Amino acid sequence: MNIEKIYLIAGGDMRFIHLSALLAKKGKVYMIGFDSGDDFPPDVTLLKNISELKRQPDYVILPMPVTTDGVVLNAPLLTKDTIQLSYILDLCHRDTLILGGKITPKVKEELEKRELRFADYLDREEFAVMNAVPTAEGTLQIVLEELPTVIMGKKVLITGFGRIAKILLKDFLALDAKVTVAARKYKDLVWAEIYGADTVAVRDFGGTLHEYDVILNTVPAMIFGEEQLREIKPDCLIIDLASRPGGVDFAAAAAMERKVIWALSLPGKTAPLTAASILETTLQNCIKECEKGVVL
Amino acid sequence: MNIEKIYLIAGGDMRFIHLSALLAKKGKVYMIGFDSGDDFPPDVTLLKNISELKRQPDYVILPMPVTTDGVVLNAPLLTKDTIQLSYILDLCHRDTLILGGKITPKVKEELEKRELRFADYLDREEFAVMNAVPTAEGTLQIVLEELPTVIMGKKVLITGFGRIAKILLKDFLALDAKVTVAARKYKDLVWAEIYGADTVAVRDFGGTLHEYDVILNTVPAMIFGEEQLREIKPDCLIIDLASRPGGVDFAAAAAMERKVIWALSLPGKTAPLTAASILETTLQNCIKECEKGVVL
Amino acid sequence: MNIEKIYLIAGGDMRFIHLSALLAKKGKVYMIGFDSGDDFPPDVTLLKNISELKRQPDYVILPMPVTTDGVVLNAPLLTKDTIQLSYILDLCHRDTLILGGKITPKVKEELEKRELRFADYLDREEFAVMNAVPTAEGTLQIVLEELPTVIMGKKVLITGFGRIAKILLKDFLALDAKVTVAARKYKDLVWAEIYGADTVAVRDFGGTLHEYDVILNTVPAMIFGEEQLREIKPDCLIIDLASRPGGVDFAAAAAMERKVIWALSLPGKTAPLTAASILETTLQNCIKECEKGVVL
Amino acid sequence: MNIEKIYLIAGGDMRFIHLSALLAKKGKVYMIGFDSGDDFPPDVTLLKNISELKRQPDYVILPMPVTTDGVVLNAPLLTKDTIQLSYILDLCHRDTLILGGKITPKVKEELEKRELRFADYLDREEFAVMNAVPTAEGTLQIVLEELPTVIMGKKVLITGFGRIAKILLKDFLALDAKVTVAARKYKDLVWAEIYGADTVAVRDFGGTLHEYDVILNTVPAMIFGEEQLREIKPDCLIIDLASRPGGVDFAAAAAMERKVIWALSLPGKTAPLTAASILETTLQNCIKECEKGVVL
Repeated sequence: MNIEKIYLIAGGDMRFIHLSALLAKKGKVYMIGFDSGDDFPPDVTLLKNISELKRQPDYVILPMPVTTDGVVLNAPLLTKDTIQLSYILDLCHRDTLILGGKITPKVKEELEKRELRFADYLDREEFAVMNAVPTAEGTLQIVLEELPTVIMGKKVLITGFGRIAKILLKDFLALDAKVTVAARKYKDLVWAEIYGADTVAVRDFGGTLHEYDVILNTVPAMIFGEEQLREIKPDCLIIDLASRPGGVDFAAAAAMERKVIWALSLPGKTAPLTAASILETTLQNCIKECEKGVVL
Repeated sequence: MNIEKIYLIAGGDMRFIHLSALLAKKGKVYMIGFDSGDDFPPDVTLLKNISELKRQPDYVILPMPVTTDGVVLNAPLLTKDTIQLSYILDLCHRDTLILGGKITPKVKEELEKRELRFADYLDREEFAVMNAVPTAEGTLQIVLEELPTVIMGKKVLITGFGRIAKILLKDFLALDAKVTVAARKYKDLVWAEIYGADTVAVRDFGGTLHEYDVILNTVPAMIFGEEQLREIKPDCLIIDLASRPGGVDFAAAAAMERKVIWALSLPGKTAPLTAASILETTLQNCIKECEKGVVL
Repeated sequence: MNIEKIYLIAGGDMRFIHLSALLAKKGKVYMIGFDSGDDFPPDVTLLKNISELKRQPDYVILPMPVTTDGVVLNAPLLTKDTIQLSYILDLCHRDTLILGGKITPKVKEELEKRELRFADYLDREEFAVMNAVPTAEGTLQIVLEELPTVIMGKKVLITGFGRIAKILLKDFLALDAKVTVAARKYKDLVWAEIYGADTVAVRDFGGTLHEYDVILNTVPAMIFGEEQLREIKPDCLIIDLASRPGGVDFAAAAAMERKVIWALSLPGKTAPLTAASILETTLQNCIKECEKGVVL
Repeated sequence: MNIEKIYLIAGGDMRFIHLSALLAKKGKVYMIGFDSGDDFPPDVTLLKNISELKRQPDYVILPMPVTTDGVVLNAPLLTKDTIQLSYILDLCHRDTLILGGKITPKVKEELEKRELRFADYLDREEFAVMNAVPTAEGTLQIVLEELPTVIMGKKVLITGFGRIAKILLKDFLALDAKVTVAARKYKDLVWAEIYGADTVAVRDFGGTLHEYDVILNTVPAMIFGEEQLREIKPDCLIIDLASRPGGVDFAAAAAMERKVIWALSLPGKTAPLTAASILETTLQNCIKECEKGVVL
């Protein structure tokens, strides 16, 4: 007989509520770490207390990050209370699979001490690749909203050639922008060219910056300092997609009245259902592999 | 000696203010039919009175439509006064070229009686083709804003295969949507397939409508009546791009709580500078041809 | 009861033998006008004599052209005999549908005198559109075979912007060639730009011809005369896809040792099965419409 | 003063003769290891004897592989003689930069013993990436030549998702084939999907193989054994692009009369000038970095 699997989602933001709806198609879903007023899918059960669980969960889903201080579970939608991470872990045993995002060394040590099975879904490359799609589409949306012109024919500079940059290149070329990719490595420049971009080595891009109508930065290093910003057209739209500290000197940009938008966490903002669906696919991949003992 | 050309823009909306900035690079631009508080480009002169003109204009640019009642010039940004069309025409002579949008038979008769040279820029096919680009990009923006998911992988139905539909197909395919084109003519279905779409004959599309996540209608005929709307998924996004009366039974859609957006005049709304630039290119094409006596 | 339809294919080249295999899935197929040694599909019956037919055919398929002299059926694969067109027509009656390619006024008159139903499949636009695909792929094959370099990055000029040119543009852009389209009409230039090409008006292309590595002509008018050929790079590959008299001065090109390939009837040569399949689809469209009395 | 650089090309095939023409634009080029009858560019000097060199070369270009037995230089176009590798190395000193392809450990040891500077251009990733373009275009040429149909609409399976597979995907999708990528890793499957493919895990592709019209293998492991070949359509075209031992059981394929083409070294065969140009770009990248002491 095939016994229904039990999922426990402990903490997290709206994405985890959307996630619960998707997991409810695969098993029985319980949640903890949310206010009761939130809008939950019909088949999902919100717990006030762990003791309400009748059977031990097969899978415990923890948020990203799992905790910010190593002690309290990250549960932004639980407004009037807090939950200790240890309260959740006490529930787990050898057969439970714990799936968390950005598991710190300290938490990892604790999990190992308790001899629990766990995996970090943020470590999985397919998670990062899939999330690059809503990031790129969200960027496209911002550009469409901000530009008083069409994208077709506009000169766009993309800095960096990682996952997000590759998809930005595809999307902006598709709308007939003239796209230049600035990167450091020869092989990245060759790939960018194969995929239809003009290319420039980052070290050589000074002197060309005045040409661009849109600049999309994906490099988490200060590439656009005062000198570079001075070179940029006043009405150029700059979107910084790099995580902290970002790639643009915001103070200098503000002083020069350059238009800079720092766009972080786009998937959750512009495509929340897709973000939840990506999380669910990744969790299922984790589960499949942990159960086979496979590492892909 | 090359004498500077004189342009007179008489009436029109914001697009004609943007237009004045572009024309100012080609000659001296005067405007009439706007409130003095509006924000005009530096080189452009707003006239209170036609008599302020020192020389007769070479080109008189009239809005679209030129007039709604055949008598008063269409000047929505002139809030406290009106201008008679005849007041502008009195100024014109044989060498003036009058360029207007949607010149009605009555106005045309008047222009011919006065033996004036004129052209209707709305009649030019390149104007319609160029405007299809901001319409498609504006539609894309709406879809990105409305969908809680990415476009990639979504099933999109485009009805009709005219100018706008062709560009919508290109743009949505580029973002990896799965696009189906519904049209009547065999040759349109073949072209849509060559450009990468799945196809369905309009007469056969009943029974398939529940599959789509997004429906983009470009056909100005009631294609989506109560029966069709009933078949559509409740969370399907429907955008009607067809001019009045549109292709969707809005009353029925409202009763069924289907999400329908009627998106008209997108170029001026989402890409006003491009809209002005398209107008300027078209006017210059008109001028070139009228001066050569060529008809293309 | 659904009685099996009878098809009679009278004359034609290899394409009609491939066609017979496709029609054999829809009904019973007889052929006449071929040598018995030819390699026929198993279910198809080659007739020596019309009298071998037990029932009158529902559809008679005639070749393209039907006849070159108005009298003898065009049957290139019947090497030791000839068939009179009238011999075939004598067999037809009011319910027979005759489908021929390039029916001349004289033959048409004869058909009308006999009060027979007929349609010319070469008149159908979807036939021409579908055939543009194998023409473009065949052209691509020739370019890949002839160039000692990759296509990526090469400068390609396409003259004209009809059906074949549109597909050539799509295919060569897809392989990352830098494509320029030369056309006469503004609207064609705008479309070419929307689909990703650089553009040049035909009247202005003198002075730019030395830039191109490949020239693909689709215009059936002498565009490349001595003056233009002189401007072209010696190692530029020129492919003329225009039907007689073509668009290149072949004598001048030979004298200058320019490499010109005159590529006609590519579908039948490089994709014979697709050519037959396109013919079959078109015939079925003809049949559907004639039986409904619809004209699309 | 800028002294002209001296290049010595020692051995190699036709590609190195094309290379000499490209290097001759950058400096003075000498060649050794070729028959005198071969067709050399005008500015290049063929040496019979090393002693004819007036100055020591700055760069010595060795073929790929440099040698097959560790002793004799690989010089297939020198038909009546052989050259010892040591004969070339004796000429080099500390300032010479030696550039060879596939330098074996034994040769490397010898170079280090002599304290010579060297680099292996086959180790550079941009070389491999750039060569994937002519490989993909050459594959496309074979498919166009072999298929009796157009590529548009055909079902194509690409196995593997490395450099060549990525470009094959791009090219075949561009021609509107329906492409499925079979790979092992989740992240590769996600990327393939983002770039427009359907995907299947390699372990699951049994049972689907009968669907494909064309199979392009890039995996150097026996994926298509007897069992898989039995499943494939008899008229499916199989092209094996994987280096020895390839991915297809050729004996089994021959016994079943499956059509398999083993396509190796396509760049040199179908795009020799591009192959030489890629080599030249890579050599110049080597030279730039060795002179800066940079490793990218």
